[in-house]
Order: sequence, then C-alpha cells, then structure tokens
Amino acid sequence: MAEITAQAVNEFRKKTGLGLMECKALLKEADGDVQKAETLAKERGLKKAELRAGRAAKAGRIETYIHHDAKQGTMLELNCETDFVARNEEFKQLAKDLALHIMAANPLYVRREDVPEADVAEQKRIFMSQVADKPANIQEKIAEGKLSAWYSETVLLDQKFVKDDTKTVKDVIIAVNARTGENISVARFARFVVGEGR
Amino acid sequence: MAEITAQAVNEFRKKTGLGLMECKALLKEADGDVQKAETLAKERGLKKAELRAGRAAKAGRIETYIHHDAKQGTMLELNCETDFVARNEEFKQLAKDLALHIMAANPLYVRREDVPEADVAEQKRIFMSQVADKPANIQEKIAEGKLSAWYSETVLLDQKFVKDDTKTVKDVIIAVNARTGENISVARFARFVVGEGR
Repeated sequence: MAEITAQAVNEFRKKTGLGLMECKALLKEADGDVQKAETLAKERGLKKAELRAGRAAKAGRIETYIHHDAKQGTMLELNCETDFVARNEEFKQLAKDLALHIMAANPLYVRREDVPEADVAEQKRIFMSQVADKPANIQEKIAEGKLSAWYSETVLLDQKFVKDDTKTVKDVIIAVNARTGENISVARFARFVVGEGR
Repeated sequence: MAEITAQAVNEFRKKTGLGLMECKALLKEADGDVQKAETLAKERGLKKAELRAGRAAKAGRIETYIHHDAKQGTMLELNCETDFVARNEEFKQLAKDLALHIMAANPLYVRREDVPEADVAEQKRIFMSQVADKPANIQEKIAEGKLSAWYSETVLLDQKFVKDDTKTVKDVIIAVNARTGENISVARFARFVVGEGR
C-alpha cells in the first residue's frame, strides 16, 4: 500500500476543500494517486471538490510591494476570470496600487465576512456601552456608525484608498471590474514588518 | 474616556505578546495611550512585554520572489541582529535564495517546532503502522527514519537547499551565520499561488 503522507493529505485538502478524514480515506482508497482520488471524490458527488475545481481555474496575479528600506513588505493575490484580463495593464496597475495600499493602511482582513464573529460582537458591546448616556432612540444608530468606522479602519475593502481618499478600495476595484467586464477580487494578502514576526 | 479600538488592541498585542484581555485592560487604564500602557505592563513585570520589546529591536529584511508568469509568489522575513549585517550582500543574497527556495520546495513550516503536535503524533502513528510487519527491535528505528524524511519534505530548515542539494537550508543559514558573526533566522514566510486563495 502506498504511503499517505500528511503533506499529500494537506495538498489534497487544499485542492478539494474536503475534510481531513475524507481526504485521507479517498487517498488511501486511490492508493495515493491524487488524480484517482479526485475522480473518486467527483464520482461520489462530493460537491466541495467541484466547487474548488472551478475555483482553481481562477486567473489573476500575485503582486508584491517592498518598502525602500526592505524592512516592510506586502504580497497579495488579485483574481479575475481570464488570463486575458490578468495581463491587462489596468489590472496590473490595480494589483500594484493595492500592494502599496496594504503597506500604508495596514488592514487586518480582506472583507467584513473575514472578521471573526466574536470580534464583531465584542466591538458592538463596546460601542453600545459608549453610547449608554445618549437618548435610547439614537443609541443603536450611533453604535452602528461606530462599527462602520471600525470596519473602515480594519477591513481592506472598506478602507479609504490611499491614492484617492474620496474612494474606498471597493469602489476602485468595482471601477476596474466595470471597465474590464470581469469579476475582480482580492483573494488574500500578507504584510510583513521586520521585528514583528517570530 | 478614549475609545479603545480592536485595531489598537491588536497592535498592542503584537507589540507586547500579552493576552487579549490583558491588553484591553492596560490600554483602558492608560486611556488609550500605547506608550503609557507599555510602561504599565513593564512596571508590573509582565515578562512577555519585555521579551517582545527585545525582539522588536531585531534587524533584517523582507524579501519577495515572483515567478515570471506572476502567478506564484513568496515573501519572507529574514532576521539578523544589526542593520549592518542586514545590508551585507551575502545576507541579501541569502534572503533572495530563500525566497526562491520557498517557491520551488513549498515548505509548510519554518521549523519542526512549528508543526502542530497532533500532526506529528498522527504521522508517527501512520509510520508505526507501516512497519508493523518488521522485526520489533527495528520498528522504531525505521519509523524514526520515515518521520525524519517527512520533516525534510515539509519543514523549511530541514529541506534540501534547491541551489545545492548536498546541503539543507539550515546548513546554508548556519554558514552565513558563521561568516557574518550574527545569529540569522527565518521569522516567517508566505507562499501564494493564483487560484489557491479564497
């Protein structure tokens, strides 16, 4: 029997989006053959595998920004639908601008949905306690405003774009989206500063 | 009272390495003044704060590698002790080589200690089951060998260096370490491939 390493399982998980045990079982059944395991997953209608397979076909580019002192850097994955748009100059410029923006504005998450629910609940609690002395009928409204301001500090898509603060990052992406006719999205980003790592 | 945002708390946590509630309490007490909160932490002998403060003084550089098709990229933080060495050509070359290595060899962790204990236990279990038919007195030895081979697949420092596979990455770092006279270490890395993100 072929040896099923944790790395093989990890890679198969990434590829299919299936659970750990499911991946192990499939790889074992396929005697370690990834192609065969994927076919097995599909035959059995394991939906996530199909979903992920569709997503793996995504186009886009990886862009980085390094500060002149080489002590700070960012990297992001910007997705579109086709290689044609991935090679478009405006798309490339957007990737560059976003890498710079992430350096300057230090977001913690790409989108609101990425913020852990517990953090949102905690922020709401804090904001509600801060408006305890305001008239009851406007408390919620003020707290909502504070939460929205908090999102615009911490969430990339909600931040003011550093090159033009009359727009949010989301606005800028939507504009390129409209001009290229393709759905464009930030998949993920990393931001490293020397001394902040382990 | 000053508003203590989650971002402020997050940044204070990064800086001090203290727990979430501890950071909140300190920031509140210091009325949001980070400097003051840090002083409070130190006065009370919160050891982690001192540790981190020492670590924040680390030198080094952020290096990136982007594959020619811009569909794959890596970023890493390479630390040393002084800015003098951070500007050293050999140190810079090491950073470049490691960024390329991470692209090619796809490690999952920097060092063995970073692998979750549960994963190591699981691998040991698998390897022991694979040697069940071997003589009892050599089972453990073979399983150890398999585990070691697994580390050399998944752990950056244990991997064969892509530019010279007679050495491990650790060997290469130690050599630069010896020549510069400074402790050099990889703090962290990221590796993005288009389509593998969200």
